[in-house]
Amino acid sequence: MDVKIQLKEADIPKQWYNLAADLPNPLQPPLGPDGKPITPEMLAPVFPMNIIEQEVSTQRWIDIPEEILDILYQWRPAPLRRAMRLEKYLKTPAKIFYKDESVSPPGSHKPNTAVAQVYYNKVFGIEKITTETGAGQWGSALAYACSQFGIECKVYMVRISFDQKPFRKLMMQVWDAKCVASPSEDTEFGRKILKEMPDTPGSLGIAISEAVEDAVKDETGKTRYSLGSVLNHVMLHQTIMGLEAKKQLKMVGIDKPDIVIGCAGGGSNFAGLAFPFAADKINGADIEIIPVEPTACPTMTRGEFAYDYGDTACMTPLMAMHTLGHAFVPAPIHAGGLRYHGMAPLVCQGIVEGLFKPRSLHQLKCYEAAILWAKTEGFICAPETSHAIATVIDEAVKAKEEGKEKVIIFSYSGHGLMDLTGYDAYLSGKLTDYELPEEDLNKSTSVLKDLPKPQIKKTGKW
Amino acid sequence: MDVKIQLKEADIPKQWYNLAADLPNPLQPPLGPDGKPITPEMLAPVFPMNIIEQEVSTQRWIDIPEEILDILYQWRPAPLRRAMRLEKYLKTPAKIFYKDESVSPPGSHKPNTAVAQVYYNKVFGIEKITTETGAGQWGSALAYACSQFGIECKVYMVRISFDQKPFRKLMMQVWDAKCVASPSEDTEFGRKILKEMPDTPGSLGIAISEAVEDAVKDETGKTRYSLGSVLNHVMLHQTIMGLEAKKQLKMVGIDKPDIVIGCAGGGSNFAGLAFPFAADKINGADIEIIPVEPTACPTMTRGEFAYDYGDTACMTPLMAMHTLGHAFVPAPIHAGGLRYHGMAPLVCQGIVEGLFKPRSLHQLKCYEAAILWAKTEGFICAPETSHAIATVIDEAVKAKEEGKEKVIIFSYSGHGLMDLTGYDAYLSGKLTDYELPEEDLNKSTSVLKDLPKPQIKKTGKW
Repeated sequence: MDVKIQLKEADIPKQWYNLAADLPNPLQPPLGPDGKPITPEMLAPVFPMNIIEQEVSTQRWIDIPEEILDILYQWRPAPLRRAMRLEKYLKTPAKIFYKDESVSPPGSHKPNTAVAQVYYNKVFGIEKITTETGAGQWGSALAYACSQFGIECKVYMVRISFDQKPFRKLMMQVWDAKCVASPSEDTEFGRKILKEMPDTPGSLGIAISEAVEDAVKDETGKTRYSLGSVLNHVMLHQTIMGLEAKKQLKMVGIDKPDIVIGCAGGGSNFAGLAFPFAADKINGADIEIIPVEPTACPTMTRGEFAYDYGDTACMTPLMAMHTLGHAFVPAPIHAGGLRYHGMAPLVCQGIVEGLFKPRSLHQLKCYEAAILWAKTEGFICAPETSHAIATVIDEAVKAKEEGKEKVIIFSYSGHGLMDLTGYDAYLSGKLTDYELPEEDLNKSTSVLKDLPKPQIKKTGKW
Repeated sequence: MDVKIQLKEADIPKQWYNLAADLPNPLQPPLGPDGKPITPEMLAPVFPMNIIEQEVSTQRWIDIPEEILDILYQWRPAPLRRAMRLEKYLKTPAKIFYKDESVSPPGSHKPNTAVAQVYYNKVFGIEKITTETGAGQWGSALAYACSQFGIECKVYMVRISFDQKPFRKLMMQVWDAKCVASPSEDTEFGRKILKEMPDTPGSLGIAISEAVEDAVKDETGKTRYSLGSVLNHVMLHQTIMGLEAKKQLKMVGIDKPDIVIGCAGGGSNFAGLAFPFAADKINGADIEIIPVEPTACPTMTRGEFAYDYGDTACMTPLMAMHTLGHAFVPAPIHAGGLRYHGMAPLVCQGIVEGLFKPRSLHQLKCYEAAILWAKTEGFICAPETSHAIATVIDEAVKAKEEGKEKVIIFSYSGHGLMDLTGYDAYLSGKLTDYELPEEDLNKSTSVLKDLPKPQIKKTGKW
């Protein structure tokens, strides 16, 4: 078996898969400030209507426009790879496959949705797109996509990443985007936060608030906001990962994997690989599906499933999701892309339904796994990705103990070439593990008590 | 036609191609300090004997051991890609293909020889390998290869790159190598240079001297030196690029390219793609083959074809090559991998024979080409690679003017994700072009006048 399993362009999926069509309970609707479901029109100042239509769609399959595929071909179909040298090192009977999303121009899975979103904005007549970014993966992905379509791009980057990862900012500039540290002086909300907490490392929640403000306050009406994770349409665009992977597994005679693993910050990387397999699980296939998060930001494993705002300034609709409370500011761990207080509603409802079984891991264990990866598979992974790799190693060792030839597949969400300061901190012994104290958790989730509660009847099927 | 043309592992070349077997004049031998050809035994303290045998071989085809292929499969066969969006932007009838060497774990073509060299050292019983690195591409490639075989690695990195590219140093550390700035305090020669020129930006010549000294002074006999370019065995290992590319062109029905282009610092990237096509040219095929260098370090276009040392301290054998003189210290342009006073003897003799037609380019034009590349093809290239891209654009525009459907192929030697400070300097207007003044050239080549002269009868065939 070749290390790389390659699809031809002709075999690229021509439709995205929408999990909302198949969830046992209907997806809980986003709510407005009055507690009532919001209407598409209410989102119109923030997103173009063609994207809003995708956001609320319950259609199972949605066509991918040819213009989007034309750009995706720059790196897609992405290879499915087998981690044979890691398998050999672990002496495991498990077969380990990974969907390599690091091969895109910005080096992560993020452009799968960036390209789609910029296309829909352009078709809708939008000329400028604003966004926030955590680790910089999303900001550079949107900058890249905007450059391919000739659209203006403004990125609010969480300050701690802006400082730790200057190269991501330079990438955005090569693709002609403007990138500022958030909180910034460019928005009212940013100025307010800076006044209250001048030394804040920032957070995704704060940066989202700034980017949304920038978009909705443009009086020409030609600016919209773009979100790189969390929302339904983002999950949708990412499913090309899992749809490709299913075809690639079939190419090597594998009908279904036993275990699917992905790291989850806002949820889109996990969802992209997992949702097409979740569809099989809903139809009866025996598949364990595991989203992994850092112990320092334990949204899925310790947060509440509740209605909460997506941002710190409470400007977004209320979404039914696992959350640590919208005012939560995570500890400055190096996996910046996993530092978010909430999680994609589609992923969360899948957790509530029992489709997905989340785990959390400490960062030292994850870096240890990343170093082992570099020494066996050769490549240097993103710190976010290392959470998936550490879980894969756990499962491969378990398969060895049980003597089972399990098929494990995970999402290799990005390379770590822009994240070497984190490796440096780890290798020089400067990193520590951090577990959120119970009292801090209680405090940060206390903001949820006066908000509406989601109404889901647990099926308990899985 | 797919953007990516993929070979299966089963179709990877099983032998390297040795141009020394086919050059019209026999390759000029390296000379010792006495002016007489050196013997393999004289190189034994520096390189293991199995590599020395390859260095002096005139056998046309040399088998690639399975153990080397097993590691190369981590990224090889590398894709041949078609730059369709650049073609469209340029409105050229030319078809532009590029051999994508950026997909390796260290992000360049360098591991093609690093993996081979570390394998041969290991088989020979060597436990530690020393080397120098310019831009850091080679150092990280050797660090990577050593990590895959469990061999100790020490890298002397040219100070200007060490300072400009801290992330390359961190990459080497992830792969467990020790990396120091050269000139360093770790060798006699380094200490001498630091005393004379404490502020020197360093040079590849100085770093080579340090790495060789480190290897030959190890009394256990278990340390050897490794060179990432220039030497015959390095060119040999790189030919897998061109051999794969020929198969890939055939897959899309192209019998031969019209133009082959590669950037050349020490020559290995250019040679890797070009030599297999040069074999066809020797046999009568009409192919224009163009190595490209920076105007600031014009080895091939303005240097003398002469016997010269490969390093600044005059520790290496004398090699017949184009050279700017072994004491030449290039201006600090950002394409660090192209800052070398000499050039691979095999490439140079090919130039003398008329097989290759070198060009030089200014760096501003190259960065301009790199930005256009990022906006059309999406990917961010290494500054070295931009020299090839700028030449490709020149040739594609020429093909348009001539109305000819030429096939152009070039080597995409590496990505630029570790080189964003150079882009930053360019985008903020801090870079300038530099042309070596005639009097400086004369001064730097004056060291050649007392050295032996190569004896080549020009065939003038091409």
